[in-house]
Amino acid sequence: MMVSVIGIGAGTRQSLTGEAMEALRRCEVIAGYTVYIQQMQELFGQEKEYLTTPMTREEERCRLALELARQGRRVAMVSSGDAGVYGMAGLMLELAPGYPGVTVEVIPGVTAALSGAAVLGAPLGHDFAVISLSDLLTPWEKIEARLLAAAEGDFAIALYNPASRRRPDYLKRACGILLRRLEGDTPCGLVRQIGRTGQQARLLSLRELENTPVDMFTTVFIGSSQTKIIDGRLVTPRGYRHE
Amino acid sequence: MMVSVIGIGAGTRQSLTGEAMEALRRCEVIAGYTVYIQQMQELFGQEKEYLTTPMTREEERCRLALELARQGRRVAMVSSGDAGVYGMAGLMLELAPGYPGVTVEVIPGVTAALSGAAVLGAPLGHDFAVISLSDLLTPWEKIEARLLAAAEGDFAIALYNPASRRRPDYLKRACGILLRRLEGDTPCGLVRQIGRTGQQARLLSLRELENTPVDMFTTVFIGSSQTKIIDGRLVTPRGYRHE
Repeated sequence: MMVSVIGIGAGTRQSLTGEAMEALRRCEVIAGYTVYIQQMQELFGQEKEYLTTPMTREEERCRLALELARQGRRVAMVSSGDAGVYGMAGLMLELAPGYPGVTVEVIPGVTAALSGAAVLGAPLGHDFAVISLSDLLTPWEKIEARLLAAAEGDFAIALYNPASRRRPDYLKRACGILLRRLEGDTPCGLVRQIGRTGQQARLLSLRELENTPVDMFTTVFIGSSQTKIIDGRLVTPRGYRHE
Repeated sequence: MMVSVIGIGAGTRQSLTGEAMEALRRCEVIAGYTVYIQQMQELFGQEKEYLTTPMTREEERCRLALELARQGRRVAMVSSGDAGVYGMAGLMLELAPGYPGVTVEVIPGVTAALSGAAVLGAPLGHDFAVISLSDLLTPWEKIEARLLAAAEGDFAIALYNPASRRRPDYLKRACGILLRRLEGDTPCGLVRQIGRTGQQARLLSLRELENTPVDMFTTVFIGSSQTKIIDGRLVTPRGYRHE
């Protein structure tokens, strides 16, 4: 039996691909974090069974989904953005070997780096790096080394999990590290609640970003040396010269 | 008047988001590269007008689309994958100021890094870098520096444009550079014609990848130090320890 791990983007009909929508229609049970399950209930109502566990109980949620699939149920595990980018796909694939006969299918979605970039313009139009500032599962030294390497490589950068209640100053620390290599006037952008009600966006310099409080619903974009602001949009051109 | 620059993923109904589909339904004229326009004709037939220019005439294509919008037509510019990742969004935003009254809206899509990753498993489950090996608009030294920085930062890496007829050996060169920093047995993957008829995928080591010919329809994935193969799937776990 198959479990589909589905990237649902912002979780609305608008943000789902045709493939994700079809996989959701096909399944009997939708598993996921509470907030995303509420969104699925708005789309599918009583048609489906739902399975939720709190934010920190992800392994338990995966095991419940895999166990239901082993019993022959058609299960979808939803994950915001793309299921393969800091999402549930990896964990499901790691746990699946304990459930013989269960196959895991991954259905991609629009991750916040892409949907947030579209709101701002095209900040990821050339080579880019995606880095999470969450040190829940990653040592901070590793995050710091990646920030430095990304700046060294002149990548445009998308930062996920730039802050939380437990670590309100992580974006400030990250900007401090980036400022060792990047100019203070490097164009940057913030998008909050991408694709959801109350979406907000803002352009600012790296120096301003360093002193800007953000929350866990925000995705942060740092320009490369080529990134510029054109008519209020953040743009990284595709190349270093024009044809 | 608005031009929508739309990421169409693999160009099928399955790969389009609800938002992209809606924007395509709304427009009168769809502009794009010949191959993608053929796909749009399969979806919309005679309902729409179509505007194509060859691969190398991208600036001309953008200018024609912007000029039609200036004249009051509702225009969509389609771009494979995500319009903002090596796509048409940046160029449209750069050219738009020459067309007063025309606004450019960017609608994100599933770029090959995400759709290819889903085919292989979850190779981009943690921090990653996206690098194009095309030196058409980027000096090769810059590409080389980015490869080294990405390896230095222990990022999982997605490579776009790994080869073309004019530069059949670029992937070999890139692997040679990565092998200065990465182990030869680093798990890697290839996906060709993602989401299209004849899709192919393969897992292999970095050392094997170095001597594997690929074409321009292939997206290449290089693992980080944490990436592993689990039951034939390429997986980069979300963190360095489990809860």
